[in-house]
Amino acid sequence: MKDATDMYIPTFQDVLDAHARVKPYIHRTPVLTSAYLNELTGAELFFKCENFQKAGAFKVRGASNAVFGLRDDQLEAGVATHSSGNHALSLSYAAGRRGIPCHVVMPRTAPEAKKAAVRGYGGIITECEPSTTSREAVFAEVQAATGAEFVHPYNDPRVIAGQGTCSLELMEQANDLDAVVAPIGGGGMVSGTCLTLSNIAPDTEIYAAEPLNADDAARSFRAGHIIADDAPDTIADGLKVPLKERTWHFVSNYVTDVLTATEDEIVDAMKLTWQRMKIVMEASCAPPLATILKNPELFAGKRVGVIITGGNVDMNNLPWTLK
Amino acid sequence: MKDATDMYIPTFQDVLDAHARVKPYIHRTPVLTSAYLNELTGAELFFKCENFQKAGAFKVRGASNAVFGLRDDQLEAGVATHSSGNHALSLSYAAGRRGIPCHVVMPRTAPEAKKAAVRGYGGIITECEPSTTSREAVFAEVQAATGAEFVHPYNDPRVIAGQGTCSLELMEQANDLDAVVAPIGGGGMVSGTCLTLSNIAPDTEIYAAEPLNADDAARSFRAGHIIADDAPDTIADGLKVPLKERTWHFVSNYVTDVLTATEDEIVDAMKLTWQRMKIVMEASCAPPLATILKNPELFAGKRVGVIITGGNVDMNNLPWTLK
Repeated sequence: MKDATDMYIPTFQDVLDAHARVKPYIHRTPVLTSAYLNELTGAELFFKCENFQKAGAFKVRGASNAVFGLRDDQLEAGVATHSSGNHALSLSYAAGRRGIPCHVVMPRTAPEAKKAAVRGYGGIITECEPSTTSREAVFAEVQAATGAEFVHPYNDPRVIAGQGTCSLELMEQANDLDAVVAPIGGGGMVSGTCLTLSNIAPDTEIYAAEPLNADDAARSFRAGHIIADDAPDTIADGLKVPLKERTWHFVSNYVTDVLTATEDEIVDAMKLTWQRMKIVMEASCAPPLATILKNPELFAGKRVGVIITGGNVDMNNLPWTLK
Repeated sequence: MKDATDMYIPTFQDVLDAHARVKPYIHRTPVLTSAYLNELTGAELFFKCENFQKAGAFKVRGASNAVFGLRDDQLEAGVATHSSGNHALSLSYAAGRRGIPCHVVMPRTAPEAKKAAVRGYGGIITECEPSTTSREAVFAEVQAATGAEFVHPYNDPRVIAGQGTCSLELMEQANDLDAVVAPIGGGGMVSGTCLTLSNIAPDTEIYAAEPLNADDAARSFRAGHIIADDAPDTIADGLKVPLKERTWHFVSNYVTDVLTATEDEIVDAMKLTWQRMKIVMEASCAPPLATILKNPELFAGKRVGVIITGGNVDMNNLPWTLK
């Protein structure tokens, strides 16, 4: 499909093709439940655990789809991206599996654990300042010097189609969901979720959850056009980036609502998940549970899918030890 | 079976009976693998994740077997125990499911998170000093006052048979294991493992792993008789208690070797598991991985089961933030 601006919008067939392409390189992650959290929220929650995914996050789905879809003449120059963390890890992992170089521009303030993990997968890091403006300028230099194929962290049809494979699995593992809640930063996961659900479960509501401190998606949703913040400050470091045209297409057409949570609500939901579900997940995964706890009238009595997006945490900087 | 001291030793039939009895009240926990940890150790590791168990630990298996095996005339007075934590949680959970009272003697130094969780399950706590001597004295008073049935945390045939259901499941989920490694405190889990494996997989080696700071099992194993420390000091707070006659029977007859790890090795293995497997587990679960990393000559090239015994952690007191 092409829209009025001649921008390629991925189709559900692209999701099915992506799933066939990436299956050998990713995990079919488990869906976990918690009797305690069901009782607390009044809903029946199904947690799709992408924190157990290869490279520690859902982003390996989209990154692998892009890397394994490259033409032979693109392999030598490899791929390049800018990322607040997990897309960098994932693209490095996928490039490593295909044996091609991967150039990564990362904010110098990104968690050390993520930088070390990118290097561990063979990624080549160039640091930038922690703002979208600096990131894009430094990236332009890197791409000019290497000729590598740009794989945007989310505003790329190959990436969106890859992320769509997550809810494809979720709906097989926990069918008849009344709603799915996913965190929103740039909107890659939410767009993939919209793409898949609008085709296979059009009655399932789709909620996007984000930090109140980085509520550009909620403000965009209400305004009817993209509003971008340059450098929002939130513990949910994966959710700082703004929507772009392709993800805005999905958010504006298919999302039921965008909900927000405060920093304290995010940290509490994160800690609660660690304590009760015994899983390690990032602060960026906590807005869905935080907003479900905060809005029981929307979710009580429903079967709700919750996407746990990643588990790459700096164990020496846990947010509740900083409070 | 009765041995020369007229002590009832549970049989494999007791394990099968226990499994039928407790199945409605426990999870069949998943077995997870990690490509990273396989590469690091040179072994193929299968982690039986009892941190995902009801009440957060394997101890619910033995506790449920005891509680649901009570006679009708024992129900009104309920059950009582002393425990460093997870047995207390588990017995409280099981008693709650059967609707009977549960009296618990706990060291006043036990993690607050565990005390709160015992109370959350309806357990009635009496505190004692953090030594075996004090614990047993205070417990005698509580039992005399209530008439409750004593369910020892490990030196009880009902409990040992219940813990034996864990390796029954493990061997169904990951067959042909060359070895199984479990942490050892009082020896309940190791005894249950010995009981099951000696019947269904007699060639599988059984290693017990414990803190060097609480190495009474290793010293007992070498000496050929029980050596008990009164109050050892280790971060692995679930492993401080000594062997007793029934667990010594299994350890002395069926264990291949008892291996030890330093406090630093335990904390490193715990942190590594959280970081790479994205699961929350207690320090008491870390000696198996720590000793596998430390003794590659024993495990490299083998299929090794590792029992992750529990996930009840005080998130405000993580050991690597204290180092």
